[in-house]
Amino acid sequence: MKIYFAGSIRGGRGDIELYQEIIDLLKNHGEVLTEHVADGHLEITEPDWSQKKIYKHDMSLISKCDIMVAEVSTPSLGVGYEIASFEGKPILCLVKESVGKNLSSMISGNPNLEIKKYETVSDIKKILEDVIG
Amino acid sequence: MKIYFAGSIRGGRGDIELYQEIIDLLKNHGEVLTEHVADGHLEITEPDWSQKKIYKHDMSLISKCDIMVAEVSTPSLGVGYEIASFEGKPILCLVKESVGKNLSSMISGNPNLEIKKYETVSDIKKILEDVIG
Repeated sequence: MKIYFAGSIRGGRGDIELYQEIIDLLKNHGEVLTEHVADGHLEITEPDWSQKKIYKHDMSLISKCDIMVAEVSTPSLGVGYEIASFEGKPILCLVKESVGKNLSSMISGNPNLEIKKYETVSDIKKILEDVIG
Repeated sequence: MKIYFAGSIRGGRGDIELYQEIIDLLKNHGEVLTEHVADGHLEITEPDWSQKKIYKHDMSLISKCDIMVAEVSTPSLGVGYEIASFEGKPILCLVKESVGKNLSSMISGNPNLEIKKYETVSDIKKILEDVIG
């Protein structure tokens, strides 16, 4: 199974270590095609790529993947865009309990998404086992 | 012409006065169906609506509108989601010059979007005249 992990890049990198932990957990369930989301040097290496190339590359990964797991605690244009682009295939959104009502209605009110709240990484581990299996 | 204006709601409300100025300018070009984006009391009134109702309502406005104008300077899951959902119809993205390279590649590298940088509201006025006419 090919997994698209979506997390904030330019929206804010405060959760980059958490993203790595989620990716490590996801590897128990399939192949993660977007490991670069947790790459701390991404901002440095990105100028080597044109923006158009990144867009095209990520869109090709979206068409290849079977499931999307999106961490939606940080507001992000890219993550919102990727979720809408993936619709029609299964999407699991992970959101910190502390975000509460601050999650966009385009996510929290969207009947096409599976949304799970968590507090700890072990909550995420359990959620992935329950949802992805 | 029916216009969908997209701006950050739960991603951050720092630009709410700017959103109102953009909406006022847009009214010279057509009917703006999303005036609530600049409503300072939105956070207070929103609990009257369920999240699912907001999602459904906004998606119905997306299908009704002829053009989207999105202010993309503030990272926002909702705005990213709305842009992807509108694709196939004309989308103008307005971004502050100061955002620079901090704009998501899903926006800046996307060949389906018209992206315009601005510094002042009168820049926006001119952009709208040039692009929408």
